[in-house]
Amino acid sequence: MKNSISLTRKGNLIVISGPSGSGKGTICRALLREMSDLHLSVSATTRQPRPGEQDGIDYYFLHRKQFEKMIADNQLLEWAEVYGYYYGTPAEPVREAISRGKDVILEIDVQGAAKVKNNYPGCVLIFIIPPSRHELEQRLTGRATDSADEIRRRLAWAEREIKELPKYDYLVINDEVAAAASKVRSIIIAERCRPALLDINDFITRYWLM
Amino acid sequence: MKNSISLTRKGNLIVISGPSGSGKGTICRALLREMSDLHLSVSATTRQPRPGEQDGIDYYFLHRKQFEKMIADNQLLEWAEVYGYYYGTPAEPVREAISRGKDVILEIDVQGAAKVKNNYPGCVLIFIIPPSRHELEQRLTGRATDSADEIRRRLAWAEREIKELPKYDYLVINDEVAAAASKVRSIIIAERCRPALLDINDFITRYWLM
Repeated sequence: MKNSISLTRKGNLIVISGPSGSGKGTICRALLREMSDLHLSVSATTRQPRPGEQDGIDYYFLHRKQFEKMIADNQLLEWAEVYGYYYGTPAEPVREAISRGKDVILEIDVQGAAKVKNNYPGCVLIFIIPPSRHELEQRLTGRATDSADEIRRRLAWAEREIKELPKYDYLVINDEVAAAASKVRSIIIAERCRPALLDINDFITRYWLM
Repeated sequence: MKNSISLTRKGNLIVISGPSGSGKGTICRALLREMSDLHLSVSATTRQPRPGEQDGIDYYFLHRKQFEKMIADNQLLEWAEVYGYYYGTPAEPVREAISRGKDVILEIDVQGAAKVKNNYPGCVLIFIIPPSRHELEQRLTGRATDSADEIRRRLAWAEREIKELPKYDYLVINDEVAAAASKVRSIIIAERCRPALLDINDFITRYWLM
């Protein structure tokens, strides 16, 4: 083993977002299988756990009072209230993993991603979309859970979301999951090579001593 | 084959640079073997062709008058005079390949890279360094062509060059050629996913019609 300079760097916050039906969840799962060194951000919620869901793994299950204290104490990278339940991203576990040099994956909707960018400007925003509007519609129709009205609503919503694309660092067309996950993996590897993550003076000093 | 939106985009100018002994040339050759869709930028020079060197492949071999006209007409992305010979990067073949959506690879020293960035601010600058100063010295010593004085001069020069690192988009430690080339490949793939390369309005319009 040759002597090699270590890049003592912070991790990146990788935000994977896109319209409902984009396949962002499937891509995240594929990534986590392939890259064992990623840390998945776990959301907090005030809804009840469903059978089989584990606290701290699927969600952090909190009481409303606890959640509202986190909002008040600015301990969430983003939060929203949906159908009477709070959902949000606790900042502390993210910052802790990043300070240990771990890249954190956060899968979130487009509105949430914008809030995260505000609270953590150094994050890397990746936008996932299906290969066409037609394909998006097919994917939403394929979900037996959604009514025709719901699908129309989601398509209209997706149209608005795609206009947010210029705010994103990267766009990945999810034509095929393995290929899209491979592109996201390349993005994660590339972002690890950013000298902005380094303390340059420390790096140069250490380098020149080796 | 599913219907998928095409990303009609320009190519990127990928500038691969680093100190003498960094192994940037070896990495470029590995990349070009792996990625058949890259276009390698060919330099122009006024020195004589060596046996086996082909015009337009190894270099564009030019007369001084021709080269000086290119300088005057601003047709070079960068140029320098070394030991009485001109060397430079013709802009036209680079721009032509980029307009066809090809990524162009330009291997160049650190001083040249800074000039290219001035003339083509959208380029992607990648800095290659050996894993340690010790390793850099070993690599320079291994070249039978260089005297001890020349090696000391190159090391001092490399020390100045490494201070340019903060101007670069990416840093790749060349610990092992295949691994370093793989990182550069990830950077090239990631940079293809930049929405900044797209005409966003055109993209959204086309997407919504599909």
